[in-house]
Amino acid sequence: MDLALLYSGGKDSSLAALLVDRFYDVTLVTAHFGITDDWQHAEAAAESLSFPFETVELDRSTADAAAERMYEDGFPRNGIQMVHHHALETVAELSVDAIADGTRRDDRVPTVTRAQAQSIEDRYGVDYISPLSGFGRGAVDRLVEATFEVESGPSEVIPKADYEGELRALLADKYGADAVTDVFPEHEQTYVRGSIE
Amino acid sequence: MDLALLYSGGKDSSLAALLVDRFYDVTLVTAHFGITDDWQHAEAAAESLSFPFETVELDRSTADAAAERMYEDGFPRNGIQMVHHHALETVAELSVDAIADGTRRDDRVPTVTRAQAQSIEDRYGVDYISPLSGFGRGAVDRLVEATFEVESGPSEVIPKADYEGELRALLADKYGADAVTDVFPEHEQTYVRGSIE
Repeated sequence: MDLALLYSGGKDSSLAALLVDRFYDVTLVTAHFGITDDWQHAEAAAESLSFPFETVELDRSTADAAAERMYEDGFPRNGIQMVHHHALETVAELSVDAIADGTRRDDRVPTVTRAQAQSIEDRYGVDYISPLSGFGRGAVDRLVEATFEVESGPSEVIPKADYEGELRALLADKYGADAVTDVFPEHEQTYVRGSIE
Repeated sequence: MDLALLYSGGKDSSLAALLVDRFYDVTLVTAHFGITDDWQHAEAAAESLSFPFETVELDRSTADAAAERMYEDGFPRNGIQMVHHHALETVAELSVDAIADGTRRDDRVPTVTRAQAQSIEDRYGVDYISPLSGFGRGAVDRLVEATFEVESGPSEVIPKADYEGELRALLADKYGADAVTDVFPEHEQTYVRGSIE
């Protein structure tokens, strides 16, 4: 069975890929708006883990709406949520049996509720799987440490391909550089450099 | 890292075992009250999948309290829930890094909320993992079909080692045979006979 996993090159989506690898033919798929080339970092991470890699392009209008929402809110949660659901629905249109993402039990954003999962499954005829949703932060950290070579640091210096990089660029372009620091509080990001042998 | 997985011999806990097998040294653990010998069915299923197997004995007072609750409720949900949480806490006392169970995204009982999971982790110093909580019923069914030889039928004829068999026996003993059919509506159970090669 074919599974497309929404992939950022970070530790969560990398671990999710290894979890489902036993049961599915997994392709790592990075969704982007064509705003930056950040998706190339995810491609490099996918290559280091020896998974097939694809990109899908998202609707630019969703990026604009998400940036506007984040700017009005002053925090990223609702905008990221909009983009994640749009990305899941875009990946669900690929010719696969199942789609997946790297959301964890303790994630506050993005989240996919049971009803939203069921709705995607019913509308697109795919299974939606969140392989890490039964794992807490501690378990994920311990598995990542045992499995990957990971680099971590503040969001703006770690090469990653979640939506954040493109939304930051869009915010800066439309609302000025201060909008980026208003919306995104400082936090650590990680990037997978390969497996530990 | 050592992981103890609460095991019934059914398809859900069998699939959960295979999901975490890549990352943990998994032991399948069947919790029972010493009321019936149903745990032997789980031992046979564990052997067919080539996993180490252990049993833990639960407090008989919890079985009595659960049977009383189910009899008063007229449905099994709250009683099963009590027993499942008691079983998780009993397994959490084993010398392991993580515990797990076979609960799925779409299960209505037993359930473990995010707060309950965190509480077990904090009090026992283990990670609690529910490997199937990111999988819906359809995905589980498709994976089971591709992976196991499964036997299915009504609850009372399928040899399984969840708490239901012992709680049925206890209900019959304390409240009469009619109490069993009052509390447990008819439903299908499954039992794993081995892997498909």
